[in-house]
Amino acid sequence: MVQGAPNKNTELTEDWLQNYVDDWVRFYLRHTENGEVASYIPELQRANKLDLGISIVGINGVKIKSGTVDVPFTIQSISKVFTFITACMERGISYVLDRIDVEPTGEAFNSIMHLEMRQVKKPFNPYVNAGAITVASLLEGKTSDEKLNPLLNLFGRMLGYRPKINEEVYRSECDTSIRNRAIGYYLLEMDFLESELELTLDTYFKQCSIEIQLDDLAVMGMVLANDGEDPKTGTEIIPRQIARLAKSLMLTCGMYDASGKFAAYVGIPAKSGVSGGIIALAPPRIRNEYLPFLDGCGIGVYGPALDKQGNSIAGIRLLRHIATQWDLSIF
Amino acid sequence: MVQGAPNKNTELTEDWLQNYVDDWVRFYLRHTENGEVASYIPELQRANKLDLGISIVGINGVKIKSGTVDVPFTIQSISKVFTFITACMERGISYVLDRIDVEPTGEAFNSIMHLEMRQVKKPFNPYVNAGAITVASLLEGKTSDEKLNPLLNLFGRMLGYRPKINEEVYRSECDTSIRNRAIGYYLLEMDFLESELELTLDTYFKQCSIEIQLDDLAVMGMVLANDGEDPKTGTEIIPRQIARLAKSLMLTCGMYDASGKFAAYVGIPAKSGVSGGIIALAPPRIRNEYLPFLDGCGIGVYGPALDKQGNSIAGIRLLRHIATQWDLSIF
Amino acid sequence: MVQGAPNKNTELTEDWLQNYVDDWVRFYLRHTENGEVASYIPELQRANKLDLGISIVGINGVKIKSGTVDVPFTIQSISKVFTFITACMERGISYVLDRIDVEPTGEAFNSIMHLEMRQVKKPFNPYVNAGAITVASLLEGKTSDEKLNPLLNLFGRMLGYRPKINEEVYRSECDTSIRNRAIGYYLLEMDFLESELELTLDTYFKQCSIEIQLDDLAVMGMVLANDGEDPKTGTEIIPRQIARLAKSLMLTCGMYDASGKFAAYVGIPAKSGVSGGIIALAPPRIRNEYLPFLDGCGIGVYGPALDKQGNSIAGIRLLRHIATQWDLSIF
Amino acid sequence: MVQGAPNKNTELTEDWLQNYVDDWVRFYLRHTENGEVASYIPELQRANKLDLGISIVGINGVKIKSGTVDVPFTIQSISKVFTFITACMERGISYVLDRIDVEPTGEAFNSIMHLEMRQVKKPFNPYVNAGAITVASLLEGKTSDEKLNPLLNLFGRMLGYRPKINEEVYRSECDTSIRNRAIGYYLLEMDFLESELELTLDTYFKQCSIEIQLDDLAVMGMVLANDGEDPKTGTEIIPRQIARLAKSLMLTCGMYDASGKFAAYVGIPAKSGVSGGIIALAPPRIRNEYLPFLDGCGIGVYGPALDKQGNSIAGIRLLRHIATQWDLSIF
Repeated sequence: MVQGAPNKNTELTEDWLQNYVDDWVRFYLRHTENGEVASYIPELQRANKLDLGISIVGINGVKIKSGTVDVPFTIQSISKVFTFITACMERGISYVLDRIDVEPTGEAFNSIMHLEMRQVKKPFNPYVNAGAITVASLLEGKTSDEKLNPLLNLFGRMLGYRPKINEEVYRSECDTSIRNRAIGYYLLEMDFLESELELTLDTYFKQCSIEIQLDDLAVMGMVLANDGEDPKTGTEIIPRQIARLAKSLMLTCGMYDASGKFAAYVGIPAKSGVSGGIIALAPPRIRNEYLPFLDGCGIGVYGPALDKQGNSIAGIRLLRHIATQWDLSIF
Repeated sequence: MVQGAPNKNTELTEDWLQNYVDDWVRFYLRHTENGEVASYIPELQRANKLDLGISIVGINGVKIKSGTVDVPFTIQSISKVFTFITACMERGISYVLDRIDVEPTGEAFNSIMHLEMRQVKKPFNPYVNAGAITVASLLEGKTSDEKLNPLLNLFGRMLGYRPKINEEVYRSECDTSIRNRAIGYYLLEMDFLESELELTLDTYFKQCSIEIQLDDLAVMGMVLANDGEDPKTGTEIIPRQIARLAKSLMLTCGMYDASGKFAAYVGIPAKSGVSGGIIALAPPRIRNEYLPFLDGCGIGVYGPALDKQGNSIAGIRLLRHIATQWDLSIF
Repeated sequence: MVQGAPNKNTELTEDWLQNYVDDWVRFYLRHTENGEVASYIPELQRANKLDLGISIVGINGVKIKSGTVDVPFTIQSISKVFTFITACMERGISYVLDRIDVEPTGEAFNSIMHLEMRQVKKPFNPYVNAGAITVASLLEGKTSDEKLNPLLNLFGRMLGYRPKINEEVYRSECDTSIRNRAIGYYLLEMDFLESELELTLDTYFKQCSIEIQLDDLAVMGMVLANDGEDPKTGTEIIPRQIARLAKSLMLTCGMYDASGKFAAYVGIPAKSGVSGGIIALAPPRIRNEYLPFLDGCGIGVYGPALDKQGNSIAGIRLLRHIATQWDLSIF
Repeated sequence: MVQGAPNKNTELTEDWLQNYVDDWVRFYLRHTENGEVASYIPELQRANKLDLGISIVGINGVKIKSGTVDVPFTIQSISKVFTFITACMERGISYVLDRIDVEPTGEAFNSIMHLEMRQVKKPFNPYVNAGAITVASLLEGKTSDEKLNPLLNLFGRMLGYRPKINEEVYRSECDTSIRNRAIGYYLLEMDFLESELELTLDTYFKQCSIEIQLDDLAVMGMVLANDGEDPKTGTEIIPRQIARLAKSLMLTCGMYDASGKFAAYVGIPAKSGVSGGIIALAPPRIRNEYLPFLDGCGIGVYGPALDKQGNSIAGIRLLRHIATQWDLSIF
């Protein structure tokens, strides 16, 4: 029998939370069978589709994790949140938003159509591929390493270590990403790019190939939840206004085609990637009477078996279950 | 000189807040000249385009208002939030969401195109006209009065009085709303409607013609902020899950084409109507160090001069300014 | 065994042609089983789906017919060719083409989407429903009878008798045509209509309900083939330039979604209707070595079993076969 | 004073025709100032925008030319007609049409949108870039030279000489054609291409860079007018059915966005290219009482100043004028 939702009589020890999470990871494990790992590059296909794990890090320091938590994976589209943050920090919010809009599209993440149909002056938002590639073009630097240096430094400040590029994934991305190349040429044609196309794509492929672990997602989510501030030291890692903007876009555009549904049914900012990772977060809220000591948190989920929208099929269910029962919704 | 943002040294009395709001209503008044009142029916055109007012009601009982606060106006599209809530209360959430989706469209509020393009099985969300007309068809009853009775009762429970239909506006809507009739026939053709077309349109026109005042918007917003519960009595007026759903849709789809920008730059649930009203709300949050005593609030704004997206041109700026400086964002 | 294509050794008597046509009507009869009669109004549904007939009338007076040739049917969308001609005769070509474009759409005949997507100033062409309804609004007159009087006169001059409205079909059209009403309201909203909506729709429904027989289609096609001139008397029934325009639009837009394929594979102007009729024509051409004495002709086809594009399923095959083997292509 | 249209009293000598054409070339020359030469590659930009010329070659051997007739130019999009013919000759019509549709799009020649919107299984037609690039992939051969060898042989059989690639234009196309590369990657992603992308694009760029002169267009048009047969020798250069198909597509899809208007107002198959060339043709027709001795003809037009649709601004007017006054319409 699995653990029910916490209520007023629940004594909310860390043990209780740990048991609760363990129960539900086990419960949702069965859904992994119904998804498929991403197959467009061989490296992603090697993932174990039965893996499922979750890590939660409270602003107050509470840490809970369960399931498969020690498998390294590439960050993929989750990087879009942080290259957007980096570009805003380098160039200023208004410079970036003059070049990329903040509207949800109601379209698949890799649609060219919307660009054309409305003869837009800019890509729809920084979390669809067209927008993220444009963001990559805004990063300063003459090589992809120079462009990504501030991003990796940002990760370093959040995580305490500088993550590395998975070279095999990176080379595979370079070799195979036909659709992104189509989008790239389209952006070039529309004169949206601020650096040379090959450099831009190289940067984009490299940022997607940054290798992390599950705890990293939880910590990064926690820093966002805390408006960009390191809760231990009070240091500003990301300016508050930029963190807010990145979070609002996670809510409206973070989960591909399922963004509207995720906002409606779960109600927390989240961003997923095709390697099966999801970063999510709950800002601190006053009324969460059941979980007072969590006090805002970051959540990382990993489950490489994907649904048709490209989100972790078991992970999204696990996240939805916990977020709903713990009442993490921001609404 | 107008009042700056509150900071740690501000003594936040109600007087301070009142002065602050008075200052900024005066400041943004100038923007009314750049907008236009809605002209598609004569009754709306009679509005005074220089009017601008705001009303704020805290969950804790604090009340602040400023500017033009005593002009009655029709609720128009803001009604969509509450007919959606009523339909969910009557039919159940899953019944309603089987028939209307929850995805933002990136399109104008009255677009037929999106319905066709993706050969969707249901309208995009309950706050575009196609969705709201479908919602009106789901309400139980054999006449528009029967269908709207539960809605007016809901308003009654929130406001302490049962608002009335403005008959002149209602008749004008019936006579002139060509686009809604086009949408209605389209929905009929697609077999989306669950009651007869004329009854459905009559219901929709009538719900848009409900007459309210500015304080009403603030009170209704406050009840939503409080997850549907009357803060004085603890009575549930709207089930929590339905209130949450309605709020999340306000954030992703509430401000027509400007929804994405409003979510990104302001970050609070809001819904506007062509008569110049906006309902907005701030859920209770822990970290709002400057305004602890507000403790979540509802906000009504009225300013009939509209921008090109159909939102109150001065009202949206006033709301954005206050929400930003008071740090009301849910992110 | 059915008759092969004519060749240089064939003695092309009328008997030969009659036998040839008889053979192929019998052959294509089997295809009627695979189609469905239009079902949106009861009157159309009463048609016998196994009916198939063809009538050919040469400019030189040759007449050949075969199969079901004596069943009256309503003209439906074929009327669009002649209301367009009538509007051009009343208003002048440039007046009409300022209000309706001449571009093929690549879309289904009743698509609203295209109107919106490109924010066009006018419907795509006079043979899609949106264009034809706009044409109906351009016809002069204060009642639908007044508006259609010149059309019926035109038919009278071509056919030698004035066809009548099928009142049952007309009433059914009025009662049931939801999609056309949606399109009508959309056109009204866009300010495309030049007469009142109900009058316009009434005119459109009535023009679709004109009852004719198979020979009528052949004669009307023959007059178009002859550039609008009565070949017996030399009288101009339709001005040459207008006849040419109507024919070119039949080629590019006459067969709904299948227009491009019909132009490519058959290569003659044609227009179909949902009652199963097709009007087609071959202009006089120098090189048709096999059929010199036909010297241009009109062709009527009737077969109420429709394919998915809304064209007569057996009729379009029969027409394609004969037009190809007799080398009627205009290219 | 310029020459009026021929009438029954005109003695139609070659001199008369020559004077007529000279007059109208002079007349339309003024329009060249209102257009712009293509600027996307430097080589095209070097064209003299004031050039305008026409060449007419009758199936019966009549030859008329006027204006700038001796400037070599690259064939550009006009090549699409002949690679399509070549692919049909190599692979068979049904093989090619299983992979490329024959529907006009109503969209600009380089639109990706339509491919996505309807989730089509194939590009719209062989004369839009997406279709032409797909055609290039169907040509047999392991290098672009091998692939284009049969095309150049086809030109050789029509023209009596084998045209050459303009190497400068070819290199420029390779270097700069961003949009075609975007389309190419999109086609690759959709799995539409039958040869490797770079080879396909190289073939496409090379075919566009074939250098010809004005008379060549007229001769090639004349062979098409004559259903693919050399009128002097009676030899089949292009199979009749393939010539017919290519001509019907010229009528429905040959003039970019202006195809529908050109079919409606001029009514002859034509195809234009961005270097300012237009190939057009009039099939032999019985009733052309004014020009009996022309008996079908090919027409070449050259005028590098383009209108917004990418057609020769003066050339299209000159062609329309002559085709209308000489009554060349196929309808």
